[in-house]
Amino acid sequence: MKRELRNYASAILLLSLSYITLQAQQKPNTKPLIIAAQGTFSAGGTVVKSEGVFDPLKPWNLPQGGQTRHGDHADVFYQIPQKAKHHSMVFLHGYGQTRRSWQTTADGREGFSDQFLRKGYGVYLVDQPGRGEAGQTTKPAQITAIPDDQTWFTQFRIGLYPAFNEGVQFPKDSLSLDRFFRMMSPNTGSVDETTIVNAMSAVFDKSGDGILFTHSAGGAPGWKTAIKNDHVKAIVAIEPGGFAFPEGEVPEGNRGGRGIPLNEFMKLTKIPIVVYFGDFIPKDETNAASLNFWRKVLATGRQWAKVVNAHGGDVSIVHLPEIGIKGNTHFIMSDLNSNEIADVITKWLKEKKLDK
Amino acid sequence: MKRELRNYASAILLLSLSYITLQAQQKPNTKPLIIAAQGTFSAGGTVVKSEGVFDPLKPWNLPQGGQTRHGDHADVFYQIPQKAKHHSMVFLHGYGQTRRSWQTTADGREGFSDQFLRKGYGVYLVDQPGRGEAGQTTKPAQITAIPDDQTWFTQFRIGLYPAFNEGVQFPKDSLSLDRFFRMMSPNTGSVDETTIVNAMSAVFDKSGDGILFTHSAGGAPGWKTAIKNDHVKAIVAIEPGGFAFPEGEVPEGNRGGRGIPLNEFMKLTKIPIVVYFGDFIPKDETNAASLNFWRKVLATGRQWAKVVNAHGGDVSIVHLPEIGIKGNTHFIMSDLNSNEIADVITKWLKEKKLDK
Repeated sequence: MKRELRNYASAILLLSLSYITLQAQQKPNTKPLIIAAQGTFSAGGTVVKSEGVFDPLKPWNLPQGGQTRHGDHADVFYQIPQKAKHHSMVFLHGYGQTRRSWQTTADGREGFSDQFLRKGYGVYLVDQPGRGEAGQTTKPAQITAIPDDQTWFTQFRIGLYPAFNEGVQFPKDSLSLDRFFRMMSPNTGSVDETTIVNAMSAVFDKSGDGILFTHSAGGAPGWKTAIKNDHVKAIVAIEPGGFAFPEGEVPEGNRGGRGIPLNEFMKLTKIPIVVYFGDFIPKDETNAASLNFWRKVLATGRQWAKVVNAHGGDVSIVHLPEIGIKGNTHFIMSDLNSNEIADVITKWLKEKKLDK
Repeated sequence: MKRELRNYASAILLLSLSYITLQAQQKPNTKPLIIAAQGTFSAGGTVVKSEGVFDPLKPWNLPQGGQTRHGDHADVFYQIPQKAKHHSMVFLHGYGQTRRSWQTTADGREGFSDQFLRKGYGVYLVDQPGRGEAGQTTKPAQITAIPDDQTWFTQFRIGLYPAFNEGVQFPKDSLSLDRFFRMMSPNTGSVDETTIVNAMSAVFDKSGDGILFTHSAGGAPGWKTAIKNDHVKAIVAIEPGGFAFPEGEVPEGNRGGRGIPLNEFMKLTKIPIVVYFGDFIPKDETNAASLNFWRKVLATGRQWAKVVNAHGGDVSIVHLPEIGIKGNTHFIMSDLNSNEIADVITKWLKEKKLDK
């Protein structure tokens, strides 16, 4: 009975502390944002045409020939603060996500885009072709809508569902989980990597010189965007799923696809690149498929950094637990310690003179 | 030869005038926006569960039981200016569209949301369940991606493709058309009206008292949102596709569905409502299916206004050509004369004391 009471008291204390922490973290930034310009545009994309003649008197005789379909573009929302720095920031989400990844957090705080906007950067938030508001595509898709929240919870290293990882920087209340799951978004068409890279390059044509932030599956097209467009002056990659190796040097199991010609690869040696990995990535093979997945990705990332740097590049792989930052999931930029992560990135940007 | 020269000179003059007009209209508003708060959230939605037990060690054995799927929510981006008015504005797009309808125009100018934000209104921009960034749904969808741009061009009364309507308030350059077509976005799931209404009501729970702007297919769920949530203090409906009649008074061919109980309908008599229709809606039956469609909708709208007003309501149907505003398409809020339209609406809001 005594022990029960003590446990009960501890639980109350813990709950209160969590609540206070949550309140402190959720306190909105009350300083107003001064926006010199904001807007939306589409970038890149394709146009397909159907054979035949369109009859404007019967527009609903579908499928009716003689028509076009504009699709496969990226969709961009941008905001430029007053006295903006020279370098903009362009944000590309990962698989199953939209720009929401960067705009908010599971517990409803400001995302990276608002945080860096407040620091004086113009921000360009992308929905990649076939996702979110870039929904119009030229190739069909079947959306199955099968229940898979727990697959993502597990794949994103929040925990091995229903268990949360110990010390995880992710809110455990049901409202936050609800918010997080509702940020998922399906593919609305079949879109290949080249289409994404072309669209991202078109975004940089509009943004001008900028720092490319990528997350997860956005990583692989991110490297190729930097190769394609000289306005990409740096890359901050959050747990990229794959890497761009030169032909002949691709390790087995790399998810970044086939090797690229050396002269293209060399462009990646001309810009500073930092890659962050979170916590709960085991050193050794385990029986959890999701953890083995990330173990291999981190290993490939370290190998890739060696190759780029051997060719004269400037890539840092930061495995956060090694610098004392623990508990991060795959969503490092929106975890509970996202302010601390933003500070780490800000320091790197300053070191690389990208804060002008 | 003389006539040809004269025609040529006229053409040059016309082109120059168009260019000057375009330049004047495209001049960006250079005053900065002072944003007290901005952010994103999801509203409403459902959760489905699959039978079985989830195995976190093999998260990718899909379809794997014991999982949830959170979907069918609306997705909202909001901005609150400093010293915001009491009434917010909530914007609901039409079929095949997202919040982009309100954020920008075919010729790349500021949309209604920025215009009214500058006038001091908080703005809540919705992607309805199964559209844009509210892409996650619980019922499957097949996206066919068939070419249908010309169907929409015609249905939206830009013209009978490839002809533009004479005097149409729509830019005729290819870049603007490209922009316009790329704002289309497919359904990512099967979503019923009740789900949309519930999500919209949840948006008003967050926005508080507000003015609901609807466009096209957003019209029908808009009426029911006002019936469901007392925070809806007025409706500005741009060419709503259907209307909510009381049971027993539904005219044939109304696209707003079955009649609703009189006690629910009566809520629509308690708030001011204005409905705008653009140009090119013929008085008589024609051989163009799209024009007949809008002819019937306008006639039904006039009939509906009579019913609401007979029950003590305050509905105005404004057929813009009748007040001297000509050339508007179905996209009244983003046509070339959108500034003039915003002024007309602003005057109405003032009359109804909704500008506080």
